[in-house]
Amino acid sequence: MPSETPQPSFVLVRPQMGENIGAAARAMWNFGLDRMRIVAPRDGWPNPKAVAMASGAGRLLDEAQMAADLPEALADCTYVFATTARPRELTKPVFSPEGAMKKAAELIGQGEKVAVLFGPERAGLENDDIAKANAIITVPVNPEFASLNLGQCVLLTAYEWRRQADTVPEEVTDLGKNDWATNAEIEALVTHYEDRLVEAGYFFPPEKAPGMKTVFRNLWSRMRLTRADVQMLHGIMRQMVRWKEHSDK
Amino acid sequence: MPSETPQPSFVLVRPQMGENIGAAARAMWNFGLDRMRIVAPRDGWPNPKAVAMASGAGRLLDEAQMAADLPEALADCTYVFATTARPRELTKPVFSPEGAMKKAAELIGQGEKVAVLFGPERAGLENDDIAKANAIITVPVNPEFASLNLGQCVLLTAYEWRRQADTVPEEVTDLGKNDWATNAEIEALVTHYEDRLVEAGYFFPPEKAPGMKTVFRNLWSRMRLTRADVQMLHGIMRQMVRWKEHSDK
Repeated sequence: MPSETPQPSFVLVRPQMGENIGAAARAMWNFGLDRMRIVAPRDGWPNPKAVAMASGAGRLLDEAQMAADLPEALADCTYVFATTARPRELTKPVFSPEGAMKKAAELIGQGEKVAVLFGPERAGLENDDIAKANAIITVPVNPEFASLNLGQCVLLTAYEWRRQADTVPEEVTDLGKNDWATNAEIEALVTHYEDRLVEAGYFFPPEKAPGMKTVFRNLWSRMRLTRADVQMLHGIMRQMVRWKEHSDK
Repeated sequence: MPSETPQPSFVLVRPQMGENIGAAARAMWNFGLDRMRIVAPRDGWPNPKAVAMASGAGRLLDEAQMAADLPEALADCTYVFATTARPRELTKPVFSPEGAMKKAAELIGQGEKVAVLFGPERAGLENDDIAKANAIITVPVNPEFASLNLGQCVLLTAYEWRRQADTVPEEVTDLGKNDWATNAEIEALVTHYEDRLVEAGYFFPPEKAPGMKTVFRNLWSRMRLTRADVQMLHGIMRQMVRWKEHSDK
């Protein structure tokens, strides 16, 4: 059974080497974190090399939540950090590990469900993955020599969680009677807009469509939407379609 | 040549595996540290396995100061930290990595020469080694699972040096090539949407319209939009209207 302590989930996205999955489990458990999620591991699951490397932290692997894709892994999350080694061109808040885990501790203290994404070893997270996150974490490494591996990145983030977990929240957002939307709700909103905008011919020319979709998705995930915001945005699109269909008659 | 930046020396005491010496060099150089000292490595020196593992940080090994024993390695140092995984019976100040590197930065700022000792992989530093240090560093690991290896211990200490030595901002927003939208641009966007949504009959029933407009405006002003976001949102609405007008014909 995972520990009762409120904590972020660490999500390994398409990890390649079993050894690195095991090393990530050890790194997490060194700092008391035991909620791992794994998206589409290259070599399938379970992975004997992961088990061998995890040794004393093998329980994390047994209890890891497996997901076929990132939306499935993030369905219940309300705030998602993505770790990246290099800057991307997506507009997002960028946190140090310290700042990120401080924010995570505050959010979790308010009952939110927080996840941290770690990309595949070779190339890191893709822009499409990052577009699903609310913020970025970048470790301030030497610009002349940035060679952190997956296990080291997990280790430093887990270490910062441990450092920040005891701190008292310094700021809370007044939500009124609202809850933050979950990732599944944001996903449904993005899909609704995308489908209608495809019908309306917005994504044009076709070769630019994937990039336009990423920028569009990034907008919704960068901003934190409440459930009421999501309802309103669904309502706006539904009304535009109704208006159009009225003309069709 | 080692960098000119004042910094602590990291001293590997009787390290066993060449791979771990190489991993320590990489961990240091990730955070801009390049002064390594090595005391009596088990497998002699130079060590091809250390070189292979160090890859881009091989310069640290070439320039490492070799010493036959600890007193020789520490001859010029004025303040020495010893890393230990478990409490010892020696009376000494015990620092977290954070506290230790904060103190190291202060001391180095005053011109002192600071060293940090890391023990052999299997058993760690002996009490005789620790007795030569001024203070102890202990990483606050999970008491149920403490399994940091040499490279990880070096990594966390080097990371904390970097955190203390230069102030890394805890949060910045990566704007890519974008600028934030001005208030006038947001205003124009809200007006564009409101006008079209009025035409489309979204604000219904009439007595609820003012409240709905306020909620809608609050959404855009709460979020920070870039100019590119604003352009995209204008484009989406224009396309919906074009789609509708196409039906009108």
